[in-house]
Amino acid sequence: MKKGQRLFQELLVDLRKLYYLGSTLQILAWDQEVKMPKKGGKLRSETIECLSGILHEKFTTSSFGTRLRKIKKFSKQQLNDEQQAIVREVLHDYHKAKKEPKAFVELFAKTASQAQNTWREAKQKSDFPLFQPYLTKIVKLARKRANYLGYRTSPYEALLHLFEPALTLTEITALLEELKAFLIPFLKILQRSPVNPNPQRLFGNFPIEKQEKLNQYVAQRIGFDFEAGRLDISEHPFTSGLHPDDVRFTTRYDKEDVLHTLIPTIHEAGHGLYEQGLLAKNFGTPLGEALSIAMHEAQSRLWENIIGRSKIFWQFFYPRLQKIFPKPFRSIPLDDFYAALNTVKASLIRVAADEVTYNLHIILRFEIEKELMEGALAVSNLPRVWNERMKSYLGVRVPDNAHGVLQDIHWSFGSIGYFPSYALGNIYAAQLYHQAQKDLPNLENDFRRGHFERFLAWQRKHIHRHGRRYRSTELIQAVTGEKISAKYFIDYLRTKYSELYKL
Amino acid sequence: MKKGQRLFQELLVDLRKLYYLGSTLQILAWDQEVKMPKKGGKLRSETIECLSGILHEKFTTSSFGTRLRKIKKFSKQQLNDEQQAIVREVLHDYHKAKKEPKAFVELFAKTASQAQNTWREAKQKSDFPLFQPYLTKIVKLARKRANYLGYRTSPYEALLHLFEPALTLTEITALLEELKAFLIPFLKILQRSPVNPNPQRLFGNFPIEKQEKLNQYVAQRIGFDFEAGRLDISEHPFTSGLHPDDVRFTTRYDKEDVLHTLIPTIHEAGHGLYEQGLLAKNFGTPLGEALSIAMHEAQSRLWENIIGRSKIFWQFFYPRLQKIFPKPFRSIPLDDFYAALNTVKASLIRVAADEVTYNLHIILRFEIEKELMEGALAVSNLPRVWNERMKSYLGVRVPDNAHGVLQDIHWSFGSIGYFPSYALGNIYAAQLYHQAQKDLPNLENDFRRGHFERFLAWQRKHIHRHGRRYRSTELIQAVTGEKISAKYFIDYLRTKYSELYKL
Repeated sequence: MKKGQRLFQELLVDLRKLYYLGSTLQILAWDQEVKMPKKGGKLRSETIECLSGILHEKFTTSSFGTRLRKIKKFSKQQLNDEQQAIVREVLHDYHKAKKEPKAFVELFAKTASQAQNTWREAKQKSDFPLFQPYLTKIVKLARKRANYLGYRTSPYEALLHLFEPALTLTEITALLEELKAFLIPFLKILQRSPVNPNPQRLFGNFPIEKQEKLNQYVAQRIGFDFEAGRLDISEHPFTSGLHPDDVRFTTRYDKEDVLHTLIPTIHEAGHGLYEQGLLAKNFGTPLGEALSIAMHEAQSRLWENIIGRSKIFWQFFYPRLQKIFPKPFRSIPLDDFYAALNTVKASLIRVAADEVTYNLHIILRFEIEKELMEGALAVSNLPRVWNERMKSYLGVRVPDNAHGVLQDIHWSFGSIGYFPSYALGNIYAAQLYHQAQKDLPNLENDFRRGHFERFLAWQRKHIHRHGRRYRSTELIQAVTGEKISAKYFIDYLRTKYSELYKL
Repeated sequence: MKKGQRLFQELLVDLRKLYYLGSTLQILAWDQEVKMPKKGGKLRSETIECLSGILHEKFTTSSFGTRLRKIKKFSKQQLNDEQQAIVREVLHDYHKAKKEPKAFVELFAKTASQAQNTWREAKQKSDFPLFQPYLTKIVKLARKRANYLGYRTSPYEALLHLFEPALTLTEITALLEELKAFLIPFLKILQRSPVNPNPQRLFGNFPIEKQEKLNQYVAQRIGFDFEAGRLDISEHPFTSGLHPDDVRFTTRYDKEDVLHTLIPTIHEAGHGLYEQGLLAKNFGTPLGEALSIAMHEAQSRLWENIIGRSKIFWQFFYPRLQKIFPKPFRSIPLDDFYAALNTVKASLIRVAADEVTYNLHIILRFEIEKELMEGALAVSNLPRVWNERMKSYLGVRVPDNAHGVLQDIHWSFGSIGYFPSYALGNIYAAQLYHQAQKDLPNLENDFRRGHFERFLAWQRKHIHRHGRRYRSTELIQAVTGEKISAKYFIDYLRTKYSELYKL
């Protein structure tokens, strides 16, 4: 065996151990949210800290770096394309991990943990000044983090790259600006429409046990393999992919609103399908990992919205829903149900927002994050700016900070730069789905009959199985023959909602 | 700070990391039995192997040993009693871990894993010759293990010490011989009694959801803290103590036999109470761990049998059981229920045996293990010897090996020397309970009213909270003022069953 190849094989052995540790950290986090008894929290956070420390230490030893650099030298001649991609991505992760000093990582984690606790209290009391000093610290540390990670123009870009490394701040700004320029006037047009669906009609009394069966059924039907995964309950839905053979997602049940559970379940199942679609043979390398958070959101939002809120999807599932819950659904025709499910209404809370207004919630956060990171906005002015923009973009008045700037958990745990992934996910999803429809003739007929196999196979072939082999930009270019563009998402929204609101 | 004290404090920091890893291995094993999806097994065993390797490596580095020996030098002058006990026990574990070469440990684990799979098949087909070559390998490896661990007279002693390090083979033999000398004639006397309870009367139709609530209720009532633990379902009941604040035990439900679930639940809850009674402040040291497997069994068997099968216990719980399951219990008076629950009947299967015959199942295994390890019995002769002794000790004829020598999983995974812990547990339990009754006047009145707090506090004070501070022999001497003796267990059985069988 040639030297480069031998070194590479040794790298794989070491790397695999790191991924076992990573997968163990995931099960510890999953258990914490889903099964852990109340008093177990202290042990759990200490255990996670300890294992994260071991993982970080093993990953950043200089001998690991030396070997990586040696392999890199042989890379072009002795390694195949996939192997080169593995080296490229591991080097990327290695440099990232080396850039942040251990003491800084620990300080950040500690501050975030305190900030999160305070945020909970502040949100409950709707008391921004209580949270303000913590957020100020978080912003300062995030800026420091950006300095460690490095950036060209704006510290915000360094953070954005944690969630989508393939796009520059300029590119993301352009995509979101285009979306915003469409959304604000479009929302006003929809609001003037005489069509006025009534989402309250979908409320009822839905026993949890029946809902559990329904959620399992829908997830299974769209392709989730329950022999290689689980669905459980947690306060906030999430998905945890330990390995393609062990993917766990969660939901939470609402006794009065079956859709309020089912739609998030489809979202998480979409994440789960991505994780199950990674190749087991690539476990232990970046090629066995999802491409980026934004691409993950593209998978979940495609299933949740483009499919899960489509009429063709419900042409299959609605009769089944009516059978399980005759009340209220027997008395609601499919068209009315579909309209109610897709009610557009400017509102205060991001997670409860419809497909159209959701993106304005994200754009608002994107702009604020950018200004905070660049020092153009002081934390103390945040509530005022938030409320002004909610009025200007969505036309709603924010009654208190709990329903405004304090609503999301993300900033409290230091996750600045995450929000744009949701809108990017929508953009990717629409562009990918547009291509899938071209590649798969009569795809809608499949869905109408409850068959999702052909589409899932398409996703697996073009997206899931590649892991981190390509960058998002490369992958979307290769699959669709075009650059990432907001056009398809805008077209999708315009067509769907023009019809629904009879524009 | 003096040097010995400083070194000791450094030891504690390092040690704590090892216990976090140990606790993580426990959650991985718990999840594997309780929650893991079907296809997750391959990843899980690889993950457990990887983490066990990291733990072993960290524990057996020579720098760890060097520090331990340095501390030992300062031990007497600079460390208090508890600290000295920690050093003593860590050194004990360290030497044990160092004695077995890594390659041997891996070979043993691999062989045991293959043997276990073959055992499952062999048991199903009742085919001993299929299992024979694997058991032969296991016995050979177990002997080799004993050689690594070291012993004075018999290789069996080295294995027994894994489960109860405080007793010699001679001492254990004497205890079990005394028990055997009582049990064989006593069983014959009971069998001649005209009293003939009917355990079948306790069968019925018990919905699982109701049973779940009942099991939770009973475990909680005897003192298990569900904010610091969970009860779940698994194929074989077990208890996993990650930390006193996170203790998880399992049971399996039998729709037709509510006691067949509840009694094992009480057994596991007994293990759980021990784990919850360890001191959180000692987590990360041997003082935060249970003393021995035998002492663990003493806790579980005390709750399961001495308390859980007593009349006073059911004076409180039986009316509640009757209320939850009127059929069949409303028509069965307490005395009849109590007699049926304590039916003595020589039978084939250890795990289904009553309190009296159970110990003969253990003694048979103890003798066979000893002979196997000392080379006095060849594996090929095992079925014949097994069946002869079943006839001689219990008077039953073994119809096939599935109901004979193949019934237990223990040997297949290399656990030779475990069985005696069950009988030692019974012996310890009776002696400890005898003392508790002396220390706590009118204890039985507590139980009759469903109050177990005073007894649990006694257990916590005298046993649980000490962890591995003392050896079992020292602890029992200190609590009861006597050496370990089979007398109390024999007296307990004689009194209880003489009354039940009207001798």
